[in-house]
Amino acid sequence: MYPELTIEAFLDKLASSAPDPGGGAAAALVGAAGAALVSMVANLTVGREKFASAQAEMERTRAQADGLRAALLAAIDRDAEAFRRVMAAYKMPRETDEHKTARRRATQEALRAASRIPAEVVALCEDVAMWSRVAAEQGNPQVISDAAVAALLADAAAQSAALNVRINLAGISDPAFTGPLWADVQTRLDRIRTQRDGVVRMTYERIG
Amino acid sequence: MYPELTIEAFLDKLASSAPDPGGGAAAALVGAAGAALVSMVANLTVGREKFASAQAEMERTRAQADGLRAALLAAIDRDAEAFRRVMAAYKMPRETDEHKTARRRATQEALRAASRIPAEVVALCEDVAMWSRVAAEQGNPQVISDAAVAALLADAAAQSAALNVRINLAGISDPAFTGPLWADVQTRLDRIRTQRDGVVRMTYERIG
Repeated sequence: MYPELTIEAFLDKLASSAPDPGGGAAAALVGAAGAALVSMVANLTVGREKFASAQAEMERTRAQADGLRAALLAAIDRDAEAFRRVMAAYKMPRETDEHKTARRRATQEALRAASRIPAEVVALCEDVAMWSRVAAEQGNPQVISDAAVAALLADAAAQSAALNVRINLAGISDPAFTGPLWADVQTRLDRIRTQRDGVVRMTYERIG
Repeated sequence: MYPELTIEAFLDKLASSAPDPGGGAAAALVGAAGAALVSMVANLTVGREKFASAQAEMERTRAQADGLRAALLAAIDRDAEAFRRVMAAYKMPRETDEHKTARRRATQEALRAASRIPAEVVALCEDVAMWSRVAAEQGNPQVISDAAVAALLADAAAQSAALNVRINLAGISDPAFTGPLWADVQTRLDRIRTQRDGVVRMTYERIG
């Protein structure tokens, strides 16, 4: 389980020539860090009298961000596992026609799974970006920059995950699957970018 | 030492209401993940006959990226430490004029250090972005998306660190210090964005 490695050990593995973890796992980690920062802003807002009017919304924000962090941490391992299955499928024998059919079926199935997981990471990051905006607007203004960092990390994580969606889709010969999935990813990336730009602009205006 | 925490424990601390780690430390972590991905691309290129012509450049890339990762990992702790010093300075007594002078001197000094560290993170991320481009251009094309993720993470980490530079500069009343430092950060952010866009575009063109 990668989240149980130390930061140093995880980055050593990331840097190594081992096939996993790779960019997909790094994307999920960065999204999880963004979600953690949303929780931090909420935690520094909830229970303080001067932010009493934001109380309920910040409790909701914290619960959502905690859940997103857990899902993104889990995606680190799920992405690595899906990648290992793709590699295993490509290594299947291809001597006979039967082999070839079985190998083709296994690679296509593995590639679908391997594209769905980073697509889920994009969707999770869209939620992180949305809650980072709520945190920036209603959270403790002393930590508004942490909400902005959350938005920046959600955006970079989503763009990184999208690259991993694209790579896997490139190996799938079924436009009925690849077309809608890629269109959905693009729509989400646009929305995340809009949130990011809004939160960063607001933050610079408030910092002065 | 934060890099010795597990990913899960570090993100728990990031999410908590504890004053550190915050967005500055998260920025350094994300930059370090970007550097690790540059090393990964280099490691999957060096020693392979079909990339023989890129050998020397990829060895240099790996050495540089390994060094950048170490510096960015160290910046996680340095950023948190600088933040603790700012907090400690603000808590100094201010009953007498002598107190006030000492407190003012200590806060200004602590804020300078706390703005220099994220500014260094921006500079380190500029180097990560530059090497990610070398990795995308000359590295093993099978992992070009990992070079692109490195560029995306370097950019987000630099933008996040820049927000932390800005916050600290906002408390420093010395334009001769704040002006040039902020101008330098802006110049670097522009260059990083250019690298990022170039690497991402190139990667999508190659993936197809």
